[in-house]
Amino acid sequence: MKKVVVITSGGDAPGMNAALYGIVKKATEENIEVYGAKCGYIGIIEENFVPLTIENTFPYLRQGGTILETIRFPAFQEKEVQRTAVEIMEKHDFDALIVIGGDGSYKGAAKLSQFYFPVIAIPATIDNDIFGTENSLGFSTAVSNATAVIDKLSTTAASHGHIFVVEVMGRHSGNIAKKVGKAVGADMTIIPEKEFTTEEVIESLDLSKKQDKKYSMIVTAEGAISCLELTKNIERNSKYKVHPLILGHIQRGGDPACEDRILGIEFGEVAIKLLKKKKYGIALRVYGGKIDALPLSEYL
Amino acid sequence: MKKVVVITSGGDAPGMNAALYGIVKKATEENIEVYGAKCGYIGIIEENFVPLTIENTFPYLRQGGTILETIRFPAFQEKEVQRTAVEIMEKHDFDALIVIGGDGSYKGAAKLSQFYFPVIAIPATIDNDIFGTENSLGFSTAVSNATAVIDKLSTTAASHGHIFVVEVMGRHSGNIAKKVGKAVGADMTIIPEKEFTTEEVIESLDLSKKQDKKYSMIVTAEGAISCLELTKNIERNSKYKVHPLILGHIQRGGDPACEDRILGIEFGEVAIKLLKKKKYGIALRVYGGKIDALPLSEYL
Amino acid sequence: MKKVVVITSGGDAPGMNAALYGIVKKATEENIEVYGAKCGYIGIIEENFVPLTIENTFPYLRQGGTILETIRFPAFQEKEVQRTAVEIMEKHDFDALIVIGGDGSYKGAAKLSQFYFPVIAIPATIDNDIFGTENSLGFSTAVSNATAVIDKLSTTAASHGHIFVVEVMGRHSGNIAKKVGKAVGADMTIIPEKEFTTEEVIESLDLSKKQDKKYSMIVTAEGAISCLELTKNIERNSKYKVHPLILGHIQRGGDPACEDRILGIEFGEVAIKLLKKKKYGIALRVYGGKIDALPLSEYL
Amino acid sequence: MKKVVVITSGGDAPGMNAALYGIVKKATEENIEVYGAKCGYIGIIEENFVPLTIENTFPYLRQGGTILETIRFPAFQEKEVQRTAVEIMEKHDFDALIVIGGDGSYKGAAKLSQFYFPVIAIPATIDNDIFGTENSLGFSTAVSNATAVIDKLSTTAASHGHIFVVEVMGRHSGNIAKKVGKAVGADMTIIPEKEFTTEEVIESLDLSKKQDKKYSMIVTAEGAISCLELTKNIERNSKYKVHPLILGHIQRGGDPACEDRILGIEFGEVAIKLLKKKKYGIALRVYGGKIDALPLSEYL
Repeated sequence: MKKVVVITSGGDAPGMNAALYGIVKKATEENIEVYGAKCGYIGIIEENFVPLTIENTFPYLRQGGTILETIRFPAFQEKEVQRTAVEIMEKHDFDALIVIGGDGSYKGAAKLSQFYFPVIAIPATIDNDIFGTENSLGFSTAVSNATAVIDKLSTTAASHGHIFVVEVMGRHSGNIAKKVGKAVGADMTIIPEKEFTTEEVIESLDLSKKQDKKYSMIVTAEGAISCLELTKNIERNSKYKVHPLILGHIQRGGDPACEDRILGIEFGEVAIKLLKKKKYGIALRVYGGKIDALPLSEYL
Repeated sequence: MKKVVVITSGGDAPGMNAALYGIVKKATEENIEVYGAKCGYIGIIEENFVPLTIENTFPYLRQGGTILETIRFPAFQEKEVQRTAVEIMEKHDFDALIVIGGDGSYKGAAKLSQFYFPVIAIPATIDNDIFGTENSLGFSTAVSNATAVIDKLSTTAASHGHIFVVEVMGRHSGNIAKKVGKAVGADMTIIPEKEFTTEEVIESLDLSKKQDKKYSMIVTAEGAISCLELTKNIERNSKYKVHPLILGHIQRGGDPACEDRILGIEFGEVAIKLLKKKKYGIALRVYGGKIDALPLSEYL
Repeated sequence: MKKVVVITSGGDAPGMNAALYGIVKKATEENIEVYGAKCGYIGIIEENFVPLTIENTFPYLRQGGTILETIRFPAFQEKEVQRTAVEIMEKHDFDALIVIGGDGSYKGAAKLSQFYFPVIAIPATIDNDIFGTENSLGFSTAVSNATAVIDKLSTTAASHGHIFVVEVMGRHSGNIAKKVGKAVGADMTIIPEKEFTTEEVIESLDLSKKQDKKYSMIVTAEGAISCLELTKNIERNSKYKVHPLILGHIQRGGDPACEDRILGIEFGEVAIKLLKKKKYGIALRVYGGKIDALPLSEYL
Repeated sequence: MKKVVVITSGGDAPGMNAALYGIVKKATEENIEVYGAKCGYIGIIEENFVPLTIENTFPYLRQGGTILETIRFPAFQEKEVQRTAVEIMEKHDFDALIVIGGDGSYKGAAKLSQFYFPVIAIPATIDNDIFGTENSLGFSTAVSNATAVIDKLSTTAASHGHIFVVEVMGRHSGNIAKKVGKAVGADMTIIPEKEFTTEEVIESLDLSKKQDKKYSMIVTAEGAISCLELTKNIERNSKYKVHPLILGHIQRGGDPACEDRILGIEFGEVAIKLLKKKKYGIALRVYGGKIDALPLSEYL
């Protein structure tokens, strides 16, 4: 193991830069050279490689986004393109590829692995919806961002006795909503995984009033029901006046929370350690609170 | 001057609680008792008075919203209701009223002043659109909140080369937009006070690309053009793909920025000092960077 | 289970108020009344009980410190005082006691449990040094606070090429230091559990220079070596000029990080669930990333 | 005016990078090229110039420290060295120099101006102690940083009824201390400009107890009395137990507060506007809340 290439792929997630630093730090100790391909898989095809060093990754350790940038590249689903990617990596003497990304990126990583090219994947998606892992880069930050914004609403809400319905990210998963709803003491949290009725929502608002909570807060994942539709439903079926708010891109952005920095660095270090031991064709994950790995074939 | 009553009125603004603390602090030194009427002018009519002390205001000095709460009370525009308010304040031996609020609240304060009741107004509105003052409570916080949120977008935007159009508060005033646009290095800032064309916006995006800014950011005040309309206009007239975001209530909420805490306490202290000197029928303001006062009659 | 009493004991830890809210929330659902004894164990002896409700705990959910306050009470180590505490709790018809605190508080809880009084303990200490648990309330916040402060130093450090030695809390444990050192990319992290030499520290600084890191950062736990002594040792044995900084109380204070809020509420909910099932004489903990419990007798 | 050179000099101050962006932004509009000399005046002597562009300044607009870095350079007080600097700037066809810094840097700027070389100075020092200006880059950030840290102490302090004595920066000036003391509701603020006695401090603590403030907070500027000495004096002359804390480098560091970003950009834009109008030999300042200028000869 002399030379590895890394990509960040799919949506950017806070903690990606920390992972890059963790990879480079451990690799430097092990005398492994690290290169980054710019903009995800497309950077491999375009042979757009840049050297990654302590000097050029350390300053970004605590910065959100990804210094390697990322662009969608649908053509990568074609077998021929994948084969080309492997050939290019071999041409450049890369001994392994580390892919930092979410669901889609994992699939690509699994495909490349089928060409017997050494690949390790690091989970990074704010939705935390990758199969098999308890945590992924960006999730803690998204929860923390959303919570911080709702906290800001709360002082206003308490001053006026307002009811807020806040929509957080999560098309198929209630992971962010559940954590955020817990953290802000939401009266009800609505997730795609569980049915609900408008009556239940209104009952939770009734209870909130009865308990003298000063303001009420419903958290909904975008995949369950939109903020605006829920607002309409509540206002039609009760006397309540509701203030809707869609958090949107605010959740994904910003500098990584402390957990995502630590997790990112640790993922990076473990990736290099495993490559050094000739362990690949795997996806890192958190399980039982600790980092271990699953075979990439699980993600085909 | 033995006993004064305070209200917070209109929309809540971060720094209102700091002003309450400033009033109580100075009043305590001057042996003046302070009461708050709950929920704005309506609290006077309903004789809903609570004593304000160092003990019950100090802990909220750095908290947003208003511990006195605030409710809209349109009936207060009637002369009879105003007269009743004055009679109730006299019945309770209040020697003066301090009103903390925005435009509408100032008008009410000016009306009460016409009954020869001593009134002082303190400017508090995140829009900073009260005539005559350079600054009002909540404005610094709103600018700082909006800037912080846009900063969060920026890391994501830079990773993907995105264009964001962000809508900030300001129905009639571009004050927030101008400061925020400056602070985030916006490519263009659109305000109600100045006409603009879609072509100009697109040119600013062209320039941004040319200057290799990695991402582009347009800030618009809600009163100039809505985020969604502007997005549509840009996408129809150019090849650009735009991400719209409405900041909404996030701007108004949250704990006061340092400036609003300091300004709130200072407004409160000055209000008591002036009352002590039998100066009233006035509205405090910031002028030339310092606190002075205008006659309330300016706001009739 | 009709009526329980709660104390927060020992040093305050961010997340204690969230735990109070979690307890009250779940207890309200289960028709269990909750009281707080003020200032820790002493509040039981002094029969200083206050009712805890959604109304008076919800607003503090996201606030640091403890609304129940806490005072050191060494007399509680005497068996007679413990017996009195149990008698008082029985006199007031309390069916169980929930203790939120650290090492010392756990010992007290275990003692009371020996009188066959139902007790559940919730781990809360920023040092995260309670036997058997992976996490305790306040730890995430302390790590996050320390990291945020060191981040602030970093921009200055990078502008001047400075070397900082930062001392974090941890008399017997390197838990905070290890996480913080990881999060900030420290050149070396010194902990009480592991010996080190001044030469190793200087070598880490040499390496940092060689890697063009722009600034260097050593993190030390107070129990390993003090900031000032380490500074002296480095400056005596090398040409380096070092800037020492002791973080002190800054780490412990402030509002809880998102994780401590969520963990606090979950601990509180689980405590009530277990009491309801007549499970007591136990200490909650995090194990394998999940909440479970150990017998309190482990802490005698 | 075709080509200007900029330095950041003396201690770094948050907002310096924003000023660089403001300069470059305006200069680009005016077709003026901008270069930075690295590390302050020494960068001129060493002819260490780098081009500054929108591309390489925009990403740092919201970052603390200075991307141009800064090193102390005592030799610059010699007339010969100053003359050399002017010759080098002329050799490189620089039409003007913009100096961003504090007291010492202003003196250097004034000296260069005596060689009839066009110079404009921009005030940047967290102490805000430059003659003639109401505000300087870094001051708002320092106040905000110190306030935020003391806020963190406050929750702990309130939980235990503690007394804190906090030492803020300010060797000759109480500017930071006054603002911070106001913002945190300090019981007393001690500054170098005003004598005080230990008795007064103790009386303020007595009053704090009497007013049921839950905790007490004294703020002292380092130039008035050190934290530790004051602690000793209080504890010797009263029954109070005091917790001292020195804020140190935390105040100076970190990303600029919104005000310093805005002020930095505005200073930068104004500097270019004035150079364009052939106004130089001046120092920008804030006066009456607005930016204007004083002759540099005031700082000789």
